[in-house]
Amino acid sequence: MTPALIDLNADLGEGFGRWRLTDDEQLLSVVTSANVACGFHAGDAATMRRVCELAVERGVRIGAQVSYRDLAGFGRRPMDVPADELAAEVAYQIGALEVFARAAGARVTYVKPHGALYNRVVHDEEQATAVVDGVLLAGGGLPLLGLPGARVLEVADKAGLPVVAEAFADRAYTDEGTLVPRARAGAVITAPDAVVERSLGLATRGAVTSLSGRRVGVRARSLCLHGDTPGAVALAREVRGRLESAGVEVRAFA
Amino acid sequence: MTPALIDLNADLGEGFGRWRLTDDEQLLSVVTSANVACGFHAGDAATMRRVCELAVERGVRIGAQVSYRDLAGFGRRPMDVPADELAAEVAYQIGALEVFARAAGARVTYVKPHGALYNRVVHDEEQATAVVDGVLLAGGGLPLLGLPGARVLEVADKAGLPVVAEAFADRAYTDEGTLVPRARAGAVITAPDAVVERSLGLATRGAVTSLSGRRVGVRARSLCLHGDTPGAVALAREVRGRLESAGVEVRAFA
Amino acid sequence: MTPALIDLNADLGEGFGRWRLTDDEQLLSVVTSANVACGFHAGDAATMRRVCELAVERGVRIGAQVSYRDLAGFGRRPMDVPADELAAEVAYQIGALEVFARAAGARVTYVKPHGALYNRVVHDEEQATAVVDGVLLAGGGLPLLGLPGARVLEVADKAGLPVVAEAFADRAYTDEGTLVPRARAGAVITAPDAVVERSLGLATRGAVTSLSGRRVGVRARSLCLHGDTPGAVALAREVRGRLESAGVEVRAFA
Amino acid sequence: MTPALIDLNADLGEGFGRWRLTDDEQLLSVVTSANVACGFHAGDAATMRRVCELAVERGVRIGAQVSYRDLAGFGRRPMDVPADELAAEVAYQIGALEVFARAAGARVTYVKPHGALYNRVVHDEEQATAVVDGVLLAGGGLPLLGLPGARVLEVADKAGLPVVAEAFADRAYTDEGTLVPRARAGAVITAPDAVVERSLGLATRGAVTSLSGRRVGVRARSLCLHGDTPGAVALAREVRGRLESAGVEVRAFA
Repeated sequence: MTPALIDLNADLGEGFGRWRLTDDEQLLSVVTSANVACGFHAGDAATMRRVCELAVERGVRIGAQVSYRDLAGFGRRPMDVPADELAAEVAYQIGALEVFARAAGARVTYVKPHGALYNRVVHDEEQATAVVDGVLLAGGGLPLLGLPGARVLEVADKAGLPVVAEAFADRAYTDEGTLVPRARAGAVITAPDAVVERSLGLATRGAVTSLSGRRVGVRARSLCLHGDTPGAVALAREVRGRLESAGVEVRAFA
Repeated sequence: MTPALIDLNADLGEGFGRWRLTDDEQLLSVVTSANVACGFHAGDAATMRRVCELAVERGVRIGAQVSYRDLAGFGRRPMDVPADELAAEVAYQIGALEVFARAAGARVTYVKPHGALYNRVVHDEEQATAVVDGVLLAGGGLPLLGLPGARVLEVADKAGLPVVAEAFADRAYTDEGTLVPRARAGAVITAPDAVVERSLGLATRGAVTSLSGRRVGVRARSLCLHGDTPGAVALAREVRGRLESAGVEVRAFA
Repeated sequence: MTPALIDLNADLGEGFGRWRLTDDEQLLSVVTSANVACGFHAGDAATMRRVCELAVERGVRIGAQVSYRDLAGFGRRPMDVPADELAAEVAYQIGALEVFARAAGARVTYVKPHGALYNRVVHDEEQATAVVDGVLLAGGGLPLLGLPGARVLEVADKAGLPVVAEAFADRAYTDEGTLVPRARAGAVITAPDAVVERSLGLATRGAVTSLSGRRVGVRARSLCLHGDTPGAVALAREVRGRLESAGVEVRAFA
Repeated sequence: MTPALIDLNADLGEGFGRWRLTDDEQLLSVVTSANVACGFHAGDAATMRRVCELAVERGVRIGAQVSYRDLAGFGRRPMDVPADELAAEVAYQIGALEVFARAAGARVTYVKPHGALYNRVVHDEEQATAVVDGVLLAGGGLPLLGLPGARVLEVADKAGLPVVAEAFADRAYTDEGTLVPRARAGAVITAPDAVVERSLGLATRGAVTSLSGRRVGVRARSLCLHGDTPGAVALAREVRGRLESAGVEVRAFA
């Protein structure tokens, strides 16, 4: 049996100017992939530069966390952006980040939509296509990171882009292996032990216990860790420690 | 005697969302270098893409017109931006434009500061250095386009970047060959005939008549044309026509 | 029979910084109500001030044209803004405009949602309620200007706010008296004669010919004129002239 | 001898969207005057509303903390904003806050410039005049809060506006009673005991020990407390406690 292999990704650089949200320095010592905010929902230029430099120092892979243009709403306000504008905005963000990745001696190696855009492209054909068009515009054939079964991954795949599926150890799943909407009771798992346990299950067995108690398969090459709540860094560290103790190889996707 | 050689540059893509400022399509049939706004004083992503595509179609060189972050003031409000933030912001803008230049089959091949930043780096050592640091961060050793004698060109030159001097046919010059400040009477030349005549003098003799009536030398490889006033495109066309009739080769700098 | 009475409203101050969209000066000599942009989709502070001063000079009523926070999309990108944030944003815009209305010797006397928000609150209960909450927050019991039958007018009415219905002489109507969606052929009427004729019909008979050729009743106290296309001001003038010749009293709503 | 009387003011609501900077809830139980951010350097509409409601609950006076339009630089980037634009921007911010103050049952009762604008109007005649013009535009004859001797207070006084001088217990003073520039060693006092002691001296004796060891008079009706560093709230509480123990009346200016 081949040993289990998992990537750990987290949102980074999500401050803006005077404001900070995540402890980028600490998180970069835990994750293997950094979803770096590119200025549209968060992420000023100086922060982007610093996060890229730290990521390279720590051997962490750099990805572009692209968003709707919405600082006031932190990219969490679903928006109907015309497809050509959305594609161009996605490309713009990737290009801006690429400068700092290159300056630090690396490259942007994947793209992950943020917030409301992430949720929208799970099912919205037009915006999924616009995001993929933006990635294609940016060149380099970058992989898309998203939810298994998301429309955006299907469109990306058809367009010849690699796709990477991710799972969430702190979110409840339905019996069909999709995320339980946040509005429903039990949708978010806050007990640290449970999060660690689910991380192990996802990484080693490709499975998780659904909200109704069934074991459902969730194939994911990456686990998304959150860094914006108290105790988040400690929990991320715990997850990584337990994965490694269990013989799981924690490594970025190729 | 070698034939005179001149580049014609103009600011392009200076709209934002619903707003348009210049007739990009028309100007791109006249100039040889396009200073494309990168989103900080003007220039949304979709416009940047379109202008790059048009520029490539017309064989026009693409430059990054970098600015302070100031949409409300159109980049015309001088700002004391900390050097590390300014450098990162310059690099960010270049990177964003590079995506669209590449997608159109070209590259960003020079950088020109805009508005208040342009004027500031004529004399401000710290900001001149920050702009050059930003260009270096962005990689590729891009040339800086600016005023002859500007501090930013000196700093760029020392840093090993190529520099390109430009002149203004519609601005009065002092006896020392510097621009007469806009606030002084006679600083801006509006008579089309005079602008055309001065363009010829700058391109063929490297000289212009100063405000006090003397002939002063102004060595410039590029002439900056303006496109945001009524009649501007017609005047730009007239300038180019007269230069070519006089045997001047209108060609982008290398 | 009482003489017909109509208000003419138009969007004004829709520039931002360096950009202008409408000829505010000219439009203010035609309309009786000015929907002044408040900074979220357009409208910088200096422009807001100037438009208010001109409006007072011309005896034109000042209304707050409130929008989603979206300069890049000119407020035309539908957004899911949480209700409490939307209500606060609406109140913020009204308050900002009120300063300039008062300084000019007037008051903000009505509120009209702009663009995507205007269309959204025709049917969206949550956002309609949020807009009304914002108007209530701002105080003064300001009337809402909108489409007859719009959800936002119903909610406003229930909340004790006056409501004012408006019609569009340059938009096609269905047999049910609702607007034909812009995407459908024939939705926008561009022939100046037809626009003038329909204005007369709306003002004097409270009726318009539908896209299918039927006469349908459209009761409106105000006609919305557009000012952002070439010839728009001339057409607005023509509409007003013909209304007055026909004995219609052109006067702002109380 | 009349008992000493002092106001305590602090910057509040300096978050934006997802970001928070100060513990508004805690600070509002300590200060008597709240400098509320109005959206230009910080302060989204929903936060402004909440801070006003809390301030009214706690009996804290509401002031408009007006700033340059600069979210990315948190209003700390000095800017040359044309006077008419600056005046309009100041009025805009006051008007926006006034809506929330009124909705909470209060009024905006003073204005304090923020960050780079605060420092600029200490000496810059043009911007000082623009700020005063903005306050006059906003109406109501609001008092200006600033540094004793600041140009803006002189201009405000001449214009008939009340002025209120403030002091800083955590900043070193020169022998002339002005603030030691931040860049100089010893400019900022971090030892909590020293800050408490200096607060007492400023409130009870109108004096402080200068950097060179002299006792200098600093007449101030208000003390500015900072809330954006760890331990800041605890220190503010300590300052207030010690002032009250010493018989100083802590009360907002009229």
